[in-house]
Amino acid sequence: MNDMTRPARIAEMLEPKSVAVIGASEDLTKFGGRLFKLLVHHGFEGAIYPINRKRETLLDIPCYTDIGATPTPPDMAVMAVPRDHVKAAVRECAEAGTKAAIIITAKFSDAGEEGAALEAEIVEEARKFGMRLIGPNCLGLISPVNKLVLCASPALFVDKLLVGRIGMVSQSGALMATIFDRAQTRGVGFSHCFSIGNQADLDLCDFLDFLVDDPATDVICTYIEGVKDGRRFLDVAERARAAGKPVLAVKAGRTDFGAAAAFSHTASLAGSYEAFAAACRETGVVLMDDPDAMIMLAAALTRFDQPERLETAILTTSGGGGAITADRLTDWNLPLASYAPETVTALEQYYYPDNAKANPVDMGAAITGGSMLVGEGSATALLKDTGSGIVLCPLTTAPDMRLLCECIAKGLAGAEAGGARKPCLVVLQPGQAANKARAELLKHGLFYFDSLDEAIRVIDGYRTMQAMAGSRADKGTSPGSISAQGLSGALDEAKAKAVLADYGVPVNRGAVAPDAAAAGRAAARLKAPFVVKVVSPDIVHKSDAGGVALNLGDAQAVEAAVAEMASRLAASHPKAAIEGYLVQEMVSGELEMFVGARRDPLFGPVVMVGAGGVLVELLKDVAVRLAPVSPAEAREMLLGLRVAPLLKGFRGSAPLDLDALADSVSRVSWLAHDLGDRFGELDVNPVLVGKAGQGCTGVDARLLMNDD
Amino acid sequence: MNDMTRPARIAEMLEPKSVAVIGASEDLTKFGGRLFKLLVHHGFEGAIYPINRKRETLLDIPCYTDIGATPTPPDMAVMAVPRDHVKAAVRECAEAGTKAAIIITAKFSDAGEEGAALEAEIVEEARKFGMRLIGPNCLGLISPVNKLVLCASPALFVDKLLVGRIGMVSQSGALMATIFDRAQTRGVGFSHCFSIGNQADLDLCDFLDFLVDDPATDVICTYIEGVKDGRRFLDVAERARAAGKPVLAVKAGRTDFGAAAAFSHTASLAGSYEAFAAACRETGVVLMDDPDAMIMLAAALTRFDQPERLETAILTTSGGGGAITADRLTDWNLPLASYAPETVTALEQYYYPDNAKANPVDMGAAITGGSMLVGEGSATALLKDTGSGIVLCPLTTAPDMRLLCECIAKGLAGAEAGGARKPCLVVLQPGQAANKARAELLKHGLFYFDSLDEAIRVIDGYRTMQAMAGSRADKGTSPGSISAQGLSGALDEAKAKAVLADYGVPVNRGAVAPDAAAAGRAAARLKAPFVVKVVSPDIVHKSDAGGVALNLGDAQAVEAAVAEMASRLAASHPKAAIEGYLVQEMVSGELEMFVGARRDPLFGPVVMVGAGGVLVELLKDVAVRLAPVSPAEAREMLLGLRVAPLLKGFRGSAPLDLDALADSVSRVSWLAHDLGDRFGELDVNPVLVGKAGQGCTGVDARLLMNDD
Repeated sequence: MNDMTRPARIAEMLEPKSVAVIGASEDLTKFGGRLFKLLVHHGFEGAIYPINRKRETLLDIPCYTDIGATPTPPDMAVMAVPRDHVKAAVRECAEAGTKAAIIITAKFSDAGEEGAALEAEIVEEARKFGMRLIGPNCLGLISPVNKLVLCASPALFVDKLLVGRIGMVSQSGALMATIFDRAQTRGVGFSHCFSIGNQADLDLCDFLDFLVDDPATDVICTYIEGVKDGRRFLDVAERARAAGKPVLAVKAGRTDFGAAAAFSHTASLAGSYEAFAAACRETGVVLMDDPDAMIMLAAALTRFDQPERLETAILTTSGGGGAITADRLTDWNLPLASYAPETVTALEQYYYPDNAKANPVDMGAAITGGSMLVGEGSATALLKDTGSGIVLCPLTTAPDMRLLCECIAKGLAGAEAGGARKPCLVVLQPGQAANKARAELLKHGLFYFDSLDEAIRVIDGYRTMQAMAGSRADKGTSPGSISAQGLSGALDEAKAKAVLADYGVPVNRGAVAPDAAAAGRAAARLKAPFVVKVVSPDIVHKSDAGGVALNLGDAQAVEAAVAEMASRLAASHPKAAIEGYLVQEMVSGELEMFVGARRDPLFGPVVMVGAGGVLVELLKDVAVRLAPVSPAEAREMLLGLRVAPLLKGFRGSAPLDLDALADSVSRVSWLAHDLGDRFGELDVNPVLVGKAGQGCTGVDARLLMNDD
Repeated sequence: MNDMTRPARIAEMLEPKSVAVIGASEDLTKFGGRLFKLLVHHGFEGAIYPINRKRETLLDIPCYTDIGATPTPPDMAVMAVPRDHVKAAVRECAEAGTKAAIIITAKFSDAGEEGAALEAEIVEEARKFGMRLIGPNCLGLISPVNKLVLCASPALFVDKLLVGRIGMVSQSGALMATIFDRAQTRGVGFSHCFSIGNQADLDLCDFLDFLVDDPATDVICTYIEGVKDGRRFLDVAERARAAGKPVLAVKAGRTDFGAAAAFSHTASLAGSYEAFAAACRETGVVLMDDPDAMIMLAAALTRFDQPERLETAILTTSGGGGAITADRLTDWNLPLASYAPETVTALEQYYYPDNAKANPVDMGAAITGGSMLVGEGSATALLKDTGSGIVLCPLTTAPDMRLLCECIAKGLAGAEAGGARKPCLVVLQPGQAANKARAELLKHGLFYFDSLDEAIRVIDGYRTMQAMAGSRADKGTSPGSISAQGLSGALDEAKAKAVLADYGVPVNRGAVAPDAAAAGRAAARLKAPFVVKVVSPDIVHKSDAGGVALNLGDAQAVEAAVAEMASRLAASHPKAAIEGYLVQEMVSGELEMFVGARRDPLFGPVVMVGAGGVLVELLKDVAVRLAPVSPAEAREMLLGLRVAPLLKGFRGSAPLDLDALADSVSRVSWLAHDLGDRFGELDVNPVLVGKAGQGCTGVDARLLMNDD
């Protein structure tokens, strides 16, 4: 199978003819003991070579003193030997012709420079022989599809691994094990799971890339602490989208504290979360904040259709549970369904008219009490309801929960007979009273949630997918062209505005004049009305000092205002160094926004727009996308902002010029894109937005180029 | 024990000498079968009288044909008989001298008018004999302290009930059972739990009242759908505070949809959530959004000290789990701890210096690997740390989780040897791999969380308690006095402002004048500058129509402006009916707020303040308290608003007149209070707030009195 001259592919690693366990034993308190035991336990069908100098056999399987002594060169080796032995073990494997090795051992690049140097040597050693490495500092891999377990986690001590169509790549081994354990317990299986550790050789994108092509995988989940190669991540995600495989991701380091935690945990640098989120948005990756909820969304995507609408029908066993659930959905701004008339008619077989049209549907309030008929009938009616896209079943403790779960499973089977597979999300909180109910669901191949929060995060995930579905707009072409050659360092307002104006971004113009006469001449070249501001490093609060004059109607008025300002300031601030007077076209607007761009080290230029002035602090309301964006995409950014109601006009206030602002955002994004690798940051702030048809104007601007 | 002439007290009901189970059987699919079985199973020490005409014995206990045939009159009866038999059964019990009965049966006031009428008859029947009722439409009660189980829920099918010091009163039976099941499974016990159903006789406050005095209860939890008597709820909550017993509450119907759900579920009306929240704030009730998290906070309060500070130390088994946790705390604006120097020194025994001062502490990164010593030492160090108030341990799957839990328990015991009991919140997500770890914690008397969300809600609950701790300010005395006698219906701006001015609330004054000369005379009685607005039902957009004149310096300018406006409008709007010209003192301010009050039907007058203008829609930023509030409390309301940074001044902007605004809020609250029962609503909107020292002014006002 392997061509000895080229490195193994991940697909090949998952179907080895033979696996060597270096440091195998029967001691389950040790990594090597558990690795060996679990590999045997889960029925790996190839040859297993335990390497242990002191034993003839382990679990009745013959042992070998070293890799060189095995009957055939093992395709794969896994090692949890002490750190100082890893390099030698890797060399032995490579020399023996092993195609890939998993290094569980930690304290390499995750523990400082010396470890990093050793890690680099080990990779070099392996590469000489074309051997690939997973890890170090990882938990290995689990491939239920291939009955291949090369992972020592206690999460694997189960009778049988569930096989599912979810592939997982995790930058945290412990988190992978926890996720795996929790998923398996509630009926969710995987195709393959990879703990990738320090990614010394094979990295995150290698595994994602494999999963995109893997026929056993339909949905890809990944826990990320930091991406090494942004471009490649985008490419892989784009390939997944083209293949119709959803990619779901959780990234640690969303917040400052989380970022610090991720940094101290692995050698990878947590990038800017917002840029990462923009990259996900660009490529359709569903970004979530909880790893378990991510797996549950993946499970829902492999089990049900993706819902066409988010309106949720709640089917519950108690009014209390229903009320809590309805409140929680409303907290998340998720819509509750109103049922189609046929649904209400169907429900009226079991409920009084008021209850039949209510959402939540409370099975406890059925006319006949809870019965087989009520459960199945209610579930079928809601699953077929055209007014809702999702059925959420938070089940509180009830006399026969098992039977009820059987009813729901039957109702689901009935509803699915028509071919449509509407999401049916059952929540059964932990507690012994529901043990049989859980088993019943699993018997019918139906997974369950054990927290309402997770079920709601899944519905929120559907919302994210829906929002991204229609947004692969054509970027169009650049509205300008620019050479970065003449630009360097921090550009002042005037230069930055000139560049913006070249790209068609409306800015107000201005000039600094040394005295009143020059100010008047400057005004004559600009458009009235004017504003004048003193330029002085010694006068901070210009307005309070009388250093600002507004609403000057013509050049004469400007000249007079500067003359008066100069004599006033000479009296009041005799020691202030006056550098001049800034004469600007005066702009008014209804709302203060800002538009900006910066170059992210991983993902390239990103563009941002948000509420300016005081709102920026209060609302933290910013939309970020990879640049460039089309005006249509920019419009979408604006409509997602919390200030969108102000832009659209509300409570009788006039709508503002959303189109002009979107156009400026797009132009700024193209400018950031066209400025190339040396582009640093661009900040147009404030941008004053007028009423619809009145445009918008950038009033101040700064541009930073990186010089090297 | 019972005095036959007075109704039984709840305390007595919990220690009956004998209990009759009406409809007892051995059929566990039926309520009566489970009720009987569970009462016997949990070792009730009094006499049990199963009532069943068809059997001689049930579970070897002699049966009786009816209540009259029992050896002694049963102190307590519980019935799950068909609805149409309930009234007769209640009469029989009452006639036999039974002091209290629990009616499980539903479809009374919860199912329409006819059921409500029957319910009322049943209550009347019982009251004739001084018999008390719990329910109907309830799940009964569970009193682990007294080994008394009068509840048929499958949640009770456990070997042994955990006894704890938490009392629970629930308006949803199924939710109570679910909460109980989940709590019991993770090591949390109760003193007593009551499902109160339709509250036909004994109601929510009766049970809360009992728990306040109950020596077996330290913390009170309640799930509420609607309060019947607001005054009484406040009194009971106040008594609990005086007794030093925290009251925790979850109320369904926080949102509009939830309210609908609660309404359709029980006969009780879901009141205004905001007024309820204000009532909780007033009396120190900790309002939460999740019933399970409520129980966990109660468990934490009975097991640990209430933390003095919220800074949290995270102790975890993996960097990934730690990063997710740190992100989540940051999402909730909860602070992560920086450790005291002694703590860092202690941790340096096990970790490299960078890791020893990091939060989260990742036991997986210990120098020596995870060991007994590391777990216990890390736990002790963090539990003794003076830089943190809470230790949160999200444990991901690890090789020996059981041992790790033992270490944490030992570390806790070590830290508690000094007497302080700092909260140590362990999170173990559901999944088989942690089964032994969970058992280990329970063995040490330590409960665990099975979701990070709940643990964080508990920390948020501590924050709520901390925020309420210092706020029982003296309300002071009213700044005015008013008789509601002369007031009726909707009062116009001028009248409302006069009332406000009487109470010392600064408002701008104004008058409507029929013509220019009268406007000038009106201005002469007011303070300049002035603003004039045309009053006409036919001119909606006054500014656009030229019907507004601003910044008029004196009476002459007002007269001239009105004259000009009149002639202009006569030309442009010849058909408009001009009612006059409103002359007002012109006010400016830095920020638009609103202050208001309304009379809540349950809790009386409430006062509110929030961001006005466009911010009210964007921020939904309102603080609500029961009226009256002192200026100090009003200040606290303001500092809790999202616009607080604007009031306090930020990023170099000037602080605004917080004190003046707080003073106005207090005065408005007193006014609402003093206006008495006929007070309806008062709205002062906008209130323009100036810079510190410049005051604030109510610019418009409306007052509504209820006339009957």
